[in-house]
Amino acid sequence: MSDVVLTANQYGKAENRVVRITRDTARHEIEDLNVTSQLRGDFEAAHTEGDNSHVVPTDTQKNTIFAFAKDGIGSPEALLLRLADHFTGEFDWVTGGRWAAEQYRWSRINDHDHSFYRSGPDTRTAVLVRDGDTDTIITGFYGLTVLKSTESGFVGYPKDKYTTLAETTDRILATDIATRWRYNTTVLDFNAVYEDVRAIMLDTFTQGYSKALQHTLYQMGEAVIGAHPEIDEIKFSCPNKHHFVADLSFCGLDNPNEVFFAADRPYGLIEATVARAGAPSADAAWVGIAGFC
Amino acid sequence: MSDVVLTANQYGKAENRVVRITRDTARHEIEDLNVTSQLRGDFEAAHTEGDNSHVVPTDTQKNTIFAFAKDGIGSPEALLLRLADHFTGEFDWVTGGRWAAEQYRWSRINDHDHSFYRSGPDTRTAVLVRDGDTDTIITGFYGLTVLKSTESGFVGYPKDKYTTLAETTDRILATDIATRWRYNTTVLDFNAVYEDVRAIMLDTFTQGYSKALQHTLYQMGEAVIGAHPEIDEIKFSCPNKHHFVADLSFCGLDNPNEVFFAADRPYGLIEATVARAGAPSADAAWVGIAGFC
Amino acid sequence: MSDVVLTANQYGKAENRVVRITRDTARHEIEDLNVTSQLRGDFEAAHTEGDNSHVVPTDTQKNTIFAFAKDGIGSPEALLLRLADHFTGEFDWVTGGRWAAEQYRWSRINDHDHSFYRSGPDTRTAVLVRDGDTDTIITGFYGLTVLKSTESGFVGYPKDKYTTLAETTDRILATDIATRWRYNTTVLDFNAVYEDVRAIMLDTFTQGYSKALQHTLYQMGEAVIGAHPEIDEIKFSCPNKHHFVADLSFCGLDNPNEVFFAADRPYGLIEATVARAGAPSADAAWVGIAGFC
Amino acid sequence: MSDVVLTANQYGKAENRVVRITRDTARHEIEDLNVTSQLRGDFEAAHTEGDNSHVVPTDTQKNTIFAFAKDGIGSPEALLLRLADHFTGEFDWVTGGRWAAEQYRWSRINDHDHSFYRSGPDTRTAVLVRDGDTDTIITGFYGLTVLKSTESGFVGYPKDKYTTLAETTDRILATDIATRWRYNTTVLDFNAVYEDVRAIMLDTFTQGYSKALQHTLYQMGEAVIGAHPEIDEIKFSCPNKHHFVADLSFCGLDNPNEVFFAADRPYGLIEATVARAGAPSADAAWVGIAGFC
Repeated sequence: MSDVVLTANQYGKAENRVVRITRDTARHEIEDLNVTSQLRGDFEAAHTEGDNSHVVPTDTQKNTIFAFAKDGIGSPEALLLRLADHFTGEFDWVTGGRWAAEQYRWSRINDHDHSFYRSGPDTRTAVLVRDGDTDTIITGFYGLTVLKSTESGFVGYPKDKYTTLAETTDRILATDIATRWRYNTTVLDFNAVYEDVRAIMLDTFTQGYSKALQHTLYQMGEAVIGAHPEIDEIKFSCPNKHHFVADLSFCGLDNPNEVFFAADRPYGLIEATVARAGAPSADAAWVGIAGFC
Repeated sequence: MSDVVLTANQYGKAENRVVRITRDTARHEIEDLNVTSQLRGDFEAAHTEGDNSHVVPTDTQKNTIFAFAKDGIGSPEALLLRLADHFTGEFDWVTGGRWAAEQYRWSRINDHDHSFYRSGPDTRTAVLVRDGDTDTIITGFYGLTVLKSTESGFVGYPKDKYTTLAETTDRILATDIATRWRYNTTVLDFNAVYEDVRAIMLDTFTQGYSKALQHTLYQMGEAVIGAHPEIDEIKFSCPNKHHFVADLSFCGLDNPNEVFFAADRPYGLIEATVARAGAPSADAAWVGIAGFC
Repeated sequence: MSDVVLTANQYGKAENRVVRITRDTARHEIEDLNVTSQLRGDFEAAHTEGDNSHVVPTDTQKNTIFAFAKDGIGSPEALLLRLADHFTGEFDWVTGGRWAAEQYRWSRINDHDHSFYRSGPDTRTAVLVRDGDTDTIITGFYGLTVLKSTESGFVGYPKDKYTTLAETTDRILATDIATRWRYNTTVLDFNAVYEDVRAIMLDTFTQGYSKALQHTLYQMGEAVIGAHPEIDEIKFSCPNKHHFVADLSFCGLDNPNEVFFAADRPYGLIEATVARAGAPSADAAWVGIAGFC
Repeated sequence: MSDVVLTANQYGKAENRVVRITRDTARHEIEDLNVTSQLRGDFEAAHTEGDNSHVVPTDTQKNTIFAFAKDGIGSPEALLLRLADHFTGEFDWVTGGRWAAEQYRWSRINDHDHSFYRSGPDTRTAVLVRDGDTDTIITGFYGLTVLKSTESGFVGYPKDKYTTLAETTDRILATDIATRWRYNTTVLDFNAVYEDVRAIMLDTFTQGYSKALQHTLYQMGEAVIGAHPEIDEIKFSCPNKHHFVADLSFCGLDNPNEVFFAADRPYGLIEATVARAGAPSADAAWVGIAGFC
């Protein structure tokens, strides 16, 4: 079958659950990550011939991740950069790859030295895509559910024969924030920027009147780009978690936005990208990230 | 088939997702519940004959839950008691039932009046079992993951030909606390007690040296029973979330409890009940709760 | 705190994922199980004193499960019985326990000798509770979703002020069958009986007109008890998976039970037990099984 | 903030659970889909100004999906094409979009006319991306777990200081097939091709000796492209579900590939694309699909 070719491919070890305790003093620190390493390069013979001479085992990639954690983690982005340097430096047929991590947030119980609880609720995400000399870092989070119980509405939309929705100037607006932003640098205090971006989003969400989730997401993105010159682009993929006003008229009760039915499916799904004007795009780095257009 | 009989049965509407906003002032309050109603009583003809004359529709149970939320919720336990009173009062063949709720925790964003985020991490549970004149209320929570990075060990256990585990006096102890406790009263500030029980557990977890998860769970239960005379019994069903010290000797690295592999399965599973001496048991009320012996 | 006592407790290793390949001939067989072992007996000192001298490590229980799989599995129930005999025989303070397994169904791809696909859809469950000299075996399954597109209705139910449901004599009836049945013996061809019980349920589901899910479940239980003298009791915990007729009148379309919205939550939840008249009950063995009253 | 711009965006209603019963004769047919509609076009003012005059409500998109199901579904791809034609035809600022569906497989119980069980195990996926005049259809499935109990090995890979894996010429090879393929046409018997592609994959999986999962996936892709001229490209994202040979030496037992521990995480993750030589690529259509490089 000479008319068939191998194109895009990558492989590695996914979901290595690494927990690093820093215990140089009595006050321990915890870093809890889920790390995935995937290599790209010249792996054609493995696919077409079953020739594994280039296939750095996924097991070796796992071992390397745990060994590198011994030297400390610092931030998910920093660990991913070290892994990328190692694999592309060690094996000349590895020309790039994709390294990703999730990080789980822990907080101290009563400010205790070595007792923690997993607080979240956001799970931090980090992706490093290396393609030859080009590194792209995309950071983000998911799992942060927010809700405004007023100061949100939806009016002025087009109507056709399939439209039954009534306009409203007072509703619940709720979403699970899932967001990813792309840095234009690899030298950064990634932890500090993360916390600040998260804080900006939460604060922006509370501000003013929301005319639609699109409107609110754009404001959040605008605020982040405005405050952080090291971010060129930010994407959102956010459900409109519908809270329907329960119709209690069957038993004679009025319900002025007090009792709601929180629906599961279907849900609105709003996806938007806010970018720095004039910044170069990096579409290839976004491939494989679910649910972001 | 005259030798076949209907025995234990119940039915109703499960997982009614009720969100109640209290908005009497500009500072809104949010209560977010998942409510299940199940009726018990004389439903034999429905099963054996398809005679639905006693079958209060599950849809009606749903409507009732939303209608009752209009009058305010207050606590999950209070809502369940009101539902039980209604159904057993309204339909004379309904002699009892099981009403249950989960409650999700929300916190204000920056102390804002009407903007919230879902904070958790614990999900509160409440079950009311009514059997004729007897009410049993079991409250609890799940989803609170805790970890001690030292002050935990496991030694002195029996060895046989299948034993390979090495003793250790310093390890990570981690678990997801899932717990349920039974009240001996239905008149209580359920919200205040809930917060205090949770605080006692977290605080006890941090104290002293853990000789095994069994040891720690017992201490937590003992502290709760000791502090709360309105609680007769408390159960735990807690995984021992293994954090294995990564063996880095393959590349010449020592690893003095710094880098761990957080394993998924299998996991230890420790289940224990701590009770007030002399208190009556209420085993029937525990039936149907998963994972508590 | 002398007024606090340890009552019900058990511990062990949960979710040991054992795959056994029988390869005595070129035609391999596969058995794929998830096994949990929990011991009961004299474990008070472990809880109250941190004295582990009776605590057979959960790690040892895991090792034992894998070692026993070497001798073949045969059926989940047979493996659980062997584990119970071992632990209660080896350690005199172990007076009983709870051993459980799930089994996943695999089928051959094109009747191939050693290539399989995981077919399900039902996951088989087995629980053995040993209490001194008494063994109780409860087998079952979950995950079998069935649907009748007609020959189902719901009429004749009581109405009150909270009732809005309309009667119907033609609707979709759909459920996920979750069922457990209790044997009155430990000597049995467990695999053959399992397949026959499952077949009886599926066949009964198709027969005749369903007046309610309660009605259908009872018929299924009656058929099973009638056909299998070694079964004394069968329980069902089945959602009524609502398929609502989509109201298309907004655009002038009639919808005679053709287009449905499959809802997630809330859902009806029907739980019932069908028993052999006069058979002894065994309530303690059911404790800890979720969602069965 | 004049230096901020809206770039890629789309919005709509996700996860509309449509069940269509065709009941023109006593022998009913069932089609069970989960449909998502997302529109692209001129939506800038909605984001930047909160001007919703172009925002066809997600609720309207939902209504349209259910209304269109009334005319029959036929195949997920056919329904998606009709939806795309409608939205781009009706609203001149809608220049494209992304329509997606999952389809769940049902089989008849005992060849019954109107009783079915959900059989799977594969869930079919379909995506239509319309960009102006260009339609791209990507079909696939996930959830088909396959396993070979022999005729698989992994040798000849590079070793470095982080390598501990031993070579093997006989192991279990297991994966969950997740695959997507891109058509070069929109006029096709989509259902027939789907079943044939699935059959080819299963059959190829059984054939011969696997030198690595990469090797097997490539063979599967090669066979599909070779048999189906209407397919230009096929992608796989498949875990290497590790089945580790249990080390039973602690109790003196040999284990010649009979007892395995099925591990959860970490797992190998192999992603590869097999394409028809010379066929045009369509990278933009793949954006937002998780886990395919």
